[in-house]
Amino acid sequence: MKTSIATVTISGELPEKLEAIARAGFEGVEIFENDFLAFDGSPADVGKMARDLGLTITLFQPFRDFEGMPEALRGRTFDRAERKFDVMQELGTDMVLVCSNVSQAALGGIDRAAADFRELGERAAKRGLKVGYEALAWGRYVNDHRDAWEIVRRADHANVGLILDSFHSLSRKIDINSIRSIPKEKIFIVQLADAPLIDMDLLYWSRHFRNMPGEGDLPVAEFTEAVASTGYDGFFSLEIFNDQFRGGSTRKIAADGHRSLIYLADQVRRKVETPIGIEMPDRAAVTGVGFIEFATDEGGAVELVDILRALGFRKVAVHRSKKVTLYQQGDIRIVINVDPLGFANAAYAVHGTFAYAMALVVDDATQAYARALALDAEPFAEPVAEGELQLPGIREVGGGLIYLIDEKSPLGRFSEIDFEAVEQEGEDEDAGLLQVDHIAQTVAYDEMLTWLLFYTSIFETRKTPMVDIIDPSGVVRSQVIENQTGTLRITMNGAENRRTLAGHFMAEKFGAGIQHLAFSTDNIFLTAARLRAKGFKPLPISPNYYGDVEARFGLEPELTERLKAENILYDRDEQGEYFQLYSGTYGEGFFFEVVERRAYRGYGAQNAIFRIAALKKQMRPEGVPKDAV
Amino acid sequence: MKTSIATVTISGELPEKLEAIARAGFEGVEIFENDFLAFDGSPADVGKMARDLGLTITLFQPFRDFEGMPEALRGRTFDRAERKFDVMQELGTDMVLVCSNVSQAALGGIDRAAADFRELGERAAKRGLKVGYEALAWGRYVNDHRDAWEIVRRADHANVGLILDSFHSLSRKIDINSIRSIPKEKIFIVQLADAPLIDMDLLYWSRHFRNMPGEGDLPVAEFTEAVASTGYDGFFSLEIFNDQFRGGSTRKIAADGHRSLIYLADQVRRKVETPIGIEMPDRAAVTGVGFIEFATDEGGAVELVDILRALGFRKVAVHRSKKVTLYQQGDIRIVINVDPLGFANAAYAVHGTFAYAMALVVDDATQAYARALALDAEPFAEPVAEGELQLPGIREVGGGLIYLIDEKSPLGRFSEIDFEAVEQEGEDEDAGLLQVDHIAQTVAYDEMLTWLLFYTSIFETRKTPMVDIIDPSGVVRSQVIENQTGTLRITMNGAENRRTLAGHFMAEKFGAGIQHLAFSTDNIFLTAARLRAKGFKPLPISPNYYGDVEARFGLEPELTERLKAENILYDRDEQGEYFQLYSGTYGEGFFFEVVERRAYRGYGAQNAIFRIAALKKQMRPEGVPKDAV
Repeated sequence: MKTSIATVTISGELPEKLEAIARAGFEGVEIFENDFLAFDGSPADVGKMARDLGLTITLFQPFRDFEGMPEALRGRTFDRAERKFDVMQELGTDMVLVCSNVSQAALGGIDRAAADFRELGERAAKRGLKVGYEALAWGRYVNDHRDAWEIVRRADHANVGLILDSFHSLSRKIDINSIRSIPKEKIFIVQLADAPLIDMDLLYWSRHFRNMPGEGDLPVAEFTEAVASTGYDGFFSLEIFNDQFRGGSTRKIAADGHRSLIYLADQVRRKVETPIGIEMPDRAAVTGVGFIEFATDEGGAVELVDILRALGFRKVAVHRSKKVTLYQQGDIRIVINVDPLGFANAAYAVHGTFAYAMALVVDDATQAYARALALDAEPFAEPVAEGELQLPGIREVGGGLIYLIDEKSPLGRFSEIDFEAVEQEGEDEDAGLLQVDHIAQTVAYDEMLTWLLFYTSIFETRKTPMVDIIDPSGVVRSQVIENQTGTLRITMNGAENRRTLAGHFMAEKFGAGIQHLAFSTDNIFLTAARLRAKGFKPLPISPNYYGDVEARFGLEPELTERLKAENILYDRDEQGEYFQLYSGTYGEGFFFEVVERRAYRGYGAQNAIFRIAALKKQMRPEGVPKDAV
Repeated sequence: MKTSIATVTISGELPEKLEAIARAGFEGVEIFENDFLAFDGSPADVGKMARDLGLTITLFQPFRDFEGMPEALRGRTFDRAERKFDVMQELGTDMVLVCSNVSQAALGGIDRAAADFRELGERAAKRGLKVGYEALAWGRYVNDHRDAWEIVRRADHANVGLILDSFHSLSRKIDINSIRSIPKEKIFIVQLADAPLIDMDLLYWSRHFRNMPGEGDLPVAEFTEAVASTGYDGFFSLEIFNDQFRGGSTRKIAADGHRSLIYLADQVRRKVETPIGIEMPDRAAVTGVGFIEFATDEGGAVELVDILRALGFRKVAVHRSKKVTLYQQGDIRIVINVDPLGFANAAYAVHGTFAYAMALVVDDATQAYARALALDAEPFAEPVAEGELQLPGIREVGGGLIYLIDEKSPLGRFSEIDFEAVEQEGEDEDAGLLQVDHIAQTVAYDEMLTWLLFYTSIFETRKTPMVDIIDPSGVVRSQVIENQTGTLRITMNGAENRRTLAGHFMAEKFGAGIQHLAFSTDNIFLTAARLRAKGFKPLPISPNYYGDVEARFGLEPELTERLKAENILYDRDEQGEYFQLYSGTYGEGFFFEVVERRAYRGYGAQNAIFRIAALKKQMRPEGVPKDAV
């Protein structure tokens, strides 16, 4: 796929934008006129800057309110176009985007518009330029690509073609198959944007909510497939208006854009015969969480081990060459890394005790790693002692690590090569914890889409709709990335301000990270009793909660009493029942959760406010838990 | 007006919310159930807390999915209601809000619903409780207050009544006159909310965008007038779901809510005979800006005076007892306050050189002051020397000052009592500056509604629609408060992040404030020439801008050349033409503007990005202007 992006998509001043676009791997760039106007170099300077960075200027845009003007305004409109042609020639681009007229003065009429474009095509041809026509979803008369295409067809000029934009077509639910009959040489360029499905005014939606393909809910892959089926092999160019992107990191947003196009091309390549995608392995199916690794120091380890023991974990192995210890219960492995050398220690120095890495078990780690790299993931490797295992690793969005392990390395880094088993200390029962149920990442709200694209493009997962969690100090947006089998579930909480529990955690940790780990049990009451016996102190839940839960679900009073006695939260939906038990907070807001699912697939979103209120109460007044286990 | 507010409207935990609600002056509070559930005191504790603060609990809400349930679910629904009645009795409130059913299980049918309410009324009556029914705009069968009213009418029970909510009725554009025929005793309580007019899904709009009456675009005053016309004299209660409020200052949002109700009652009182409003003077008509006062120190004053002189100002008077100097040109008065005592000095200590105060000329300062205080404005007065004038003053939202002056104090604090004229230094021409055209306030985006309500409720002004200004580092929301005659124009720029020019200014100044002052001339070219002669250095505008302006408006090349030579920005709309000339930045981003209006009423929003790009360029790289005059 030939990739391009409009400068309006990202923040910054023009030179900064171009640099980030080139660095992200794009081949082309659309110059959004205002970016150029606000810049004080000449058009030639901009053109040189782009070329020096290896970028083709795919488009100069937009040229507005052109077609169908009454005679009194028509002459000036063409004069205006000639002035833009001057700029284009200086810039060194051969194409201008003309978007459908929104002026009150416009007259309408397909033939009138076609005649205008024929004349514009003539003028453009004299200079070796091309004119692309795009139907805005809110154009005054033309707001459908089928009408724009009819105008282009009647204009019947080699230098006049159609520009398709996924947002404009998909937001109006125009039949995408109508694209398949357009001759590929008449599609001059294709713009892409996705958006969350919120029913609202099209212009408002477009101006504020667009996002990268795959980040929203529109069928952009189907749209692209329809385009590819024509044989079109030109540029696919991102044109995204999004308030978050406009205030976000120039480089990160550009990188997301590039990743979104590679992923999109890969999806389309699998459906139609097209040269637009590059070969890469399938999205990696995750069959489980191999381990979660904490970075800490000796003192932090003592505290952490206390909690793990109260949760029923036992030390099972120690690393042969590093200060790394493995705790286990059921299929849950927790690694504590206090080695003074290496990445873990560096992470600890910045973030404090931190669940900085996790291993995902995939069918084929080599393939998964290859896919991740094809999707611009940053590889990670650390020196290992001779003979020890080197797991393929990648950096996640927040800077933490994801190791990829598979059946060829069944124990991952806990193989006998690296680790030595330790004698079991007595015959304590465990607490019945079985697996990692889900991993809760706290992230900056502005970066939620980045995380989402990262996980969904590399791993076989889907995203669930965003849910608002009401923290007493502000809204926290929550979204889940999960696979069909439930073997990978990541909840992402996007914090907008640092007064929320999530925001506090992120501020204190200097960045995004895992804020809590949920482990599964198949008998919550048994687990609760065993935890109690081990001295585990659950998070106290308000008694008022239980009165409501009983009334809401019509629970037997006996069950309510048991829930209340153990501080267990309850939820139920059409599928089944859900039980949640929380620990208090540890450090700046990290905590553990134990859940039992009875055919339930959600995450107890309704209970989140009660959990947050209880945690906040515990952290008050000094931001330090009163009752950490 | 008996004022109430739902706890869901503001942020914080329940005790904090109740305290802020009482402090803001509300008489009543609706307990939003989740706020109570997350709190770990008993219902009786909550009731006591409210009563100790002098608050009546007007409502317990919401009770969902009640009416029209099939037989299999009906029993449990009533059980659930009885449980809530228990809570209400403990809380000490006599009314519950039942919102129309949204459950897929609900059956519909007016008579079925009426029968359910009759039974619920019977049960409530046994306990001395009342049931209010509200039509949600997205109710499954009932989504119109007229239908809810028909159900209440057929339920025909003294303990069952209607709850009206302005958002639910106005969002669906239901004829408000339908309220006028409802008997007042059947309206149990009235909830109020406004919202900006954005066409979108009703539920999404309601959950995220509601705001205080007067802050949005819905005809809430007309709605309230219709309610008042029935003779209703119960509580008017704010129920607002707003993402900003949920993350905002608990006290400030509560205070805004109280102000919004007082203002609303005042509007309604003027239209219908009703006891709901209190007597207060009319909104104050502003006839001009009396002066702008800067707080600074001796060193800062030297710099500031240099700029003022380059702009053509002259020193005209000095204060008799304070280190305060007056500069003037045309009808523009700039006061420089370097007095080591008093508020100005305290403001300077925190914010640096700062336009911390302004005087607005009104018809009757005493009346305007009385209105401001009736609307909860905080009065301000500073000790003055014996015999000197004491101007009535109020604090504005950001903590700065607004003095109110009128014809009875024609020169305000520049009367001969306080000031002594100074000899004019030579015969220098001024620059032709005539008046303050507008005052540009930079504010936190989260507080824009607070500012808007402050100005529009006290002064005879209107707000214009919000406009997005694209700063290279993020979106800045801009909104104008102005009067019909143009004698008061305040532009507010709401910054969401500190990387924008506006956000940088606010971060460096430790708060909101006046970021630029625009002065009017009736001959921009003459003024530009005179400024040049005085050594004023205008903000350099990108040459690219002029190529576009010429093409866009079809300007004569000669005019374009003149604009470009003087770095003047140009705009035109249906009404007329606009010319803008900027200074460079001073300090952390303060600047001046000179404008000429030829029948033009806007603010050149299209030019803002070019101005911002030029200012940012000037401030780079050290955040300090390269070329301050």
